[in-house]
Amino acid sequence: MQAFLITFCISAMDLECSSQETVKQGLLARGWPPIKGFSKHVKTKVLEFFSLLIKLGQDDPRRVVHSLKAGLALTLVSLFYYYQPLYKSFGVSAMWAVITVVVVFEFSVGATLGKGVNRGLATLLAGGLAVAAHQLANLSGRIGEPIVLGIFVFLQAAVSTFVRFCPQIKARYDYGLLIFILTFSLISISGFRDDEVLELVHKRLLTVLIGGSTCVIISVLVFPVWAGQDLHNLIASNMEKLGIFLEGFGDEYFKMPEDGESKEDRPFLQGYKSVLDSKTNEDALANFARWEPRHGRFQFRHPWKQYLKIGALTRKCAYRIESLNGHLYADIQAKREIRSKIQETCTTMSMESGKALKELSMAIKTMVKPFAADIHIENSKSSVKNLDTLLKSGLWDDETDLLEVVPVATVASLLIDVVTCTAEIAESVNELATMLKFEVVEPTVSPEKPETGQPKIGIS
Amino acid sequence: MQAFLITFCISAMDLECSSQETVKQGLLARGWPPIKGFSKHVKTKVLEFFSLLIKLGQDDPRRVVHSLKAGLALTLVSLFYYYQPLYKSFGVSAMWAVITVVVVFEFSVGATLGKGVNRGLATLLAGGLAVAAHQLANLSGRIGEPIVLGIFVFLQAAVSTFVRFCPQIKARYDYGLLIFILTFSLISISGFRDDEVLELVHKRLLTVLIGGSTCVIISVLVFPVWAGQDLHNLIASNMEKLGIFLEGFGDEYFKMPEDGESKEDRPFLQGYKSVLDSKTNEDALANFARWEPRHGRFQFRHPWKQYLKIGALTRKCAYRIESLNGHLYADIQAKREIRSKIQETCTTMSMESGKALKELSMAIKTMVKPFAADIHIENSKSSVKNLDTLLKSGLWDDETDLLEVVPVATVASLLIDVVTCTAEIAESVNELATMLKFEVVEPTVSPEKPETGQPKIGIS
Repeated sequence: MQAFLITFCISAMDLECSSQETVKQGLLARGWPPIKGFSKHVKTKVLEFFSLLIKLGQDDPRRVVHSLKAGLALTLVSLFYYYQPLYKSFGVSAMWAVITVVVVFEFSVGATLGKGVNRGLATLLAGGLAVAAHQLANLSGRIGEPIVLGIFVFLQAAVSTFVRFCPQIKARYDYGLLIFILTFSLISISGFRDDEVLELVHKRLLTVLIGGSTCVIISVLVFPVWAGQDLHNLIASNMEKLGIFLEGFGDEYFKMPEDGESKEDRPFLQGYKSVLDSKTNEDALANFARWEPRHGRFQFRHPWKQYLKIGALTRKCAYRIESLNGHLYADIQAKREIRSKIQETCTTMSMESGKALKELSMAIKTMVKPFAADIHIENSKSSVKNLDTLLKSGLWDDETDLLEVVPVATVASLLIDVVTCTAEIAESVNELATMLKFEVVEPTVSPEKPETGQPKIGIS
Repeated sequence: MQAFLITFCISAMDLECSSQETVKQGLLARGWPPIKGFSKHVKTKVLEFFSLLIKLGQDDPRRVVHSLKAGLALTLVSLFYYYQPLYKSFGVSAMWAVITVVVVFEFSVGATLGKGVNRGLATLLAGGLAVAAHQLANLSGRIGEPIVLGIFVFLQAAVSTFVRFCPQIKARYDYGLLIFILTFSLISISGFRDDEVLELVHKRLLTVLIGGSTCVIISVLVFPVWAGQDLHNLIASNMEKLGIFLEGFGDEYFKMPEDGESKEDRPFLQGYKSVLDSKTNEDALANFARWEPRHGRFQFRHPWKQYLKIGALTRKCAYRIESLNGHLYADIQAKREIRSKIQETCTTMSMESGKALKELSMAIKTMVKPFAADIHIENSKSSVKNLDTLLKSGLWDDETDLLEVVPVATVASLLIDVVTCTAEIAESVNELATMLKFEVVEPTVSPEKPETGQPKIGIS
């Protein structure tokens, strides 16, 4: 329907434009020029909106598939209305199946399952309690009944609403509590007008089950989107983004401004920024993933907590990188001579950490034990040692202005922090590899390990 | 009801424990000791849960009030069932009022209003379109009707579901689109069985309006919680948290480990950590705040975007502080002599930035033009200059090991970044002050300004 509406709007605007051209010399055109501007503005906005939608589809074609799946699920449950034998057994209660599909069908299997289970269990529990409340209220006579029911509804709504503030419960059972309040209120209140409460509960439960299972079945069988897989990929790609920054940082920092164009034109160096704010997304995906059954390489009790731990360490590293990035574009930078003295060591530290992160990211993606990451981390650590030696060796002459040393020293120090963070990330990825028994595969192409295979000592 | 259930569980467990004690020597107790352990475990968990609930209430008593308000709203709309004249006009459609209250009633006025408006408008629009779809489908005869209806339902569900992926729309109209799909499907499908579609739409719209307005009225009139006020306070308190860290940092960093207990026992220095992840919360509050009418010192079109800008700058500063915090607990720290040389300058930089942030936070809280913040920022900036002078003056002797200078240089450099960030925050707070015409109040107590009122030059 929206598509029709929008097409209608555009055609209407086209008509308006052409008709305006024919009356160019008329009163309207001369008197109300803002109309033309406004219609042009609306047209631009609508076109922008369409290109945004197309981009959304191109970025992740699963979105298009999901929309079609949602349409399919809804059309399927609407058969309850169209097909006489089905309608006969449920009547207007069939609408609960439709409502269930609309509110339960989510993008990922985990989210759909979580909502479905929450809705089903909450309806069962609330239905049972509401029947009990109805029986209790029945004892207090026609006048007392609404008062007792009112007290029950008030109490359960207040208590359940308060429990929803509990963060642990909110994360997994918020929707269940909402449905608990809804079902309890509906059934117990309806019981006042309709004595067939048990049948009401039965019908509601059955329609919710039918709607919920339609969602779950379509969600699992038709091009399933697994939240677990998404979390897995997100953690790996976040690590890769940091790796890309670090691989590029050394060259970028030590390149002198006069060497070329503005340093700000480096979109590949800005990719890490999305990592800074990824906590909410990771937490949500982990919550959904916990509902998911075994699929592909993921078991039911997959160690999602370990993914969150790796995510937190990656973010910690990203905070350091944010500080580093500030130095990339700082106005005051150290002199060329000073920078060139530690250029090689710092570039190696950054480059090797970046390679290690990319290697670890690839290890997670392919679920193969990281092979070369340890070598890269050893290389970066030995660069830290080299830096120490370099600084101790008094390579700096006495005339060196300390003021000019500070920015370089800071970059070096932040890079040392990054090396430490990378080692922590590697450790937790190795823990994950042990938990999940990652495959051990000898790489066909030899990684760029140091000549001796031993950490490099001395200044290269 | 949950309260009853939980009380029941506890009493049941108490009974179990005491009965177990009486049969201590019996087969059960000797054979199944895990039962006792398990019941103890459950009891501990339940008690923990209760103390968590009590803490939730103590932390923010508005949560208790909100729960009571939700109970009140639900009890009020249930009158539609209890009161015969009301029930006569709505019948079972009254349940839509109950459902509306359960799903629309949110913690803050903005969230409730946003959901209410979304639900109301979506019901109106979808109802109108569904009637049109029903008329169109009617033209295609008894056999063609379900097919045409099915196509309409599929199309609108797929298109609306896809539009929900658009981030700008998701932020404000996600719930509206959900209700659009729900209402369109329900009305158009029901139309197949019930030719009184117009009356159906009319009843649904009216009950949704009644439910929605009950929520909005209670939300606004009974101890309202304004999302705008919450965002305002959050931004101010985040800034204050950074201020507290910075005020304490200097003393903490330059204090030698042997001076006292472990440095890790400083909870007041860890408060800033919550700022790192506050983006999602700020965005959500700003989205809710946009729905809110004028209240207290906040207008309808309050510059919430400026709050988000200040929030983003505060987070940027928090990232630097996270790096600084890493140095607080670093194993390798510079020698006492080296640190003592820049101790005063660095402590002043940190202290003055902290004071400026606390001053700015207070300015936002009280909506009074920041008076002393600029002085503190000038002080911190002049400390940066002092540091430059100090480093240029060759105060360091030739034997100074550069390796030991690096950590101190990094801390100094990060503090310089913090000073820059603080100045940026101050600028955006001043922009906010101009937008909102903050009051100008001469402070009764003179702030700790430098003796001359001019930035201090030279080493103090």
